Amino acid sequence: MTDGPVAILAGSGRLPLQLVQHLERSGRDHRILAFQGFVEPEIRRRAHATVALLDLRRIMATLERWQPSVVTLVGAVSRPGFAALLGAYSLFANRSEVRDVIARGDDQMLRGAVGLLEERGYRVVGAHELAPELVVARGLAGQVAASPQDRSTVELGLALLEALSAFDIGQAAVLAGRRVLAIEGPEGTDRMLRRVRRLRGARFARPARKEGGVLVKAAKRGQDLRVDMPTIGPRTVVEAAKAGLSGIAIGAGSSLLLDQADALRTADELGLFLASVDLPWMDDHEGR
Amino acid sequence: MTDGPVAILAGSGRLPLQLVQHLERSGRDHRILAFQGFVEPEIRRRAHATVALLDLRRIMATLERWQPSVVTLVGAVSRPGFAALLGAYSLFANRSEVRDVIARGDDQMLRGAVGLLEERGYRVVGAHELAPELVVARGLAGQVAASPQDRSTVELGLALLEALSAFDIGQAAVLAGRRVLAIEGPEGTDRMLRRVRRLRGARFARPARKEGGVLVKAAKRGQDLRVDMPTIGPRTVVEAAKAGLSGIAIGAGSSLLLDQADALRTADELGLFLASVDLPWMDDHEGR
Repeated sequence: MTDGPVAILAGSGRLPLQLVQHLERSGRDHRILAFQGFVEPEIRRRAHATVALLDLRRIMATLERWQPSVVTLVGAVSRPGFAALLGAYSLFANRSEVRDVIARGDDQMLRGAVGLLEERGYRVVGAHELAPELVVARGLAGQVAASPQDRSTVELGLALLEALSAFDIGQAAVLAGRRVLAIEGPEGTDRMLRRVRRLRGARFARPARKEGGVLVKAAKRGQDLRVDMPTIGPRTVVEAAKAGLSGIAIGAGSSLLLDQADALRTADELGLFLASVDLPWMDDHEGR
Repeated sequence: MTDGPVAILAGSGRLPLQLVQHLERSGRDHRILAFQGFVEPEIRRRAHATVALLDLRRIMATLERWQPSVVTLVGAVSRPGFAALLGAYSLFANRSEVRDVIARGDDQMLRGAVGLLEERGYRVVGAHELAPELVVARGLAGQVAASPQDRSTVELGLALLEALSAFDIGQAAVLAGRRVLAIEGPEGTDRMLRRVRRLRGARFARPARKEGGVLVKAAKRGQDLRVDMPTIGPRTVVEAAKAGLSGIAIGAGSSLLLDQADALRTADELGLFLASVDLPWMDDHEGR
């Protein structure tokens, strides 16, 4: 299968398109399997197949036909309800094992999906391996510098994310000073930022001013970077500014920054720092 | 001051009224200082003084006049903006120390307020010491029993809250199976439950069904129970049901359950378990 195309299992967000554009630019053969109802219009138009998320039979049949050299899962998919998942996965394995996998955190469930693909002989790779220029480089930074206080808040945020690693939640958190304002759940980073904005706005009956605070986003200890890699982009920067934050710190080597030039320019214009941070819990080889 | 009244510094929510009613029933002399804009109508009507949260001079002058035997802080107050706090507290202490206190988590800031009162010779006590019948008793439980799966989810939730103790956030979390759906931030338990409801509803374009999951709420390791004691009531039970949860576990000895009979009846009627759990990190003397 080493000569086959890259098979892209595409969910929502802008990562699928950026990956596809990268592959187009580098002339690498690829096939897009779009998850119905999730992908953005540009991907829907480019898709070679459009399949319901839970139609595992058709997903597997499509991959069988494409004979890809590698498979990658990019973009977000909402987690379907328990019953729907149970129905879908029970085609494949022991019902009680499935129930166990489904009850676990998102990452563990996604790892289950990767395992399923690997079991059938596919090589699963992360978007960072296919498009390394999207990866947040060590030392990445915009024009605005983080203050010493912000840097100390970022350290606290990293300690928080590390403490949460065992619980398969919390790729991101917002902190102001020594105070934790929000921990990201399955709702995602943008919604968490809107929560912070409401939290601040609601108390003063006006939109959040630049009160400070930082968004810290990073891969968990032990996270499989092939699934659900921490990703931000220009929109995240705008939402962070609307929440009154002074900046964003994102894990070096193990996160993706979409539209890097645009994201950095947006941060500069809005007066936010945007900088990578080294993660003490990431091995160097994981982070490259 | 041992013969003086109980001074109640009252914020929002139903705890202030329940405490006042308890003191009325037991014939204990008390004075209510209501924080303007926060208290419920019943407290506003009963208040002996109504003061702006940040008018520390008037708060102190009022207490000076009342000569209370004990002071208690009950009910929630939103955390004011940094600048407002800085202005208020800078009347009292070194500006950089104040800045440090303000930047900390809610509990640490509230502990600062307690310290301020104690410095001036007041004895600060928790609502649980004045109205022990509001405290969640060990062994408290409604008619509905938690399933073995729910019990194991509760254990995971307690481990999560314990891991968060160091970060001064997260008195409560919602989990389903092994999956963390939400961690409570400064928005409070009810809003967190509504977030879970949206999280579930939004994915299916219908209100959340009873998909299961538990609300776990407990005092942090090292929490000063005189401030911000974990509190739930019948409304929490209703919100949990709306979020599709199967039950609520609340820390025994170190939490308050308002309207206990009503809350338990509501849980029974809605088919939710409502049970106390022992907290491994609480000393017995703390929890009584």
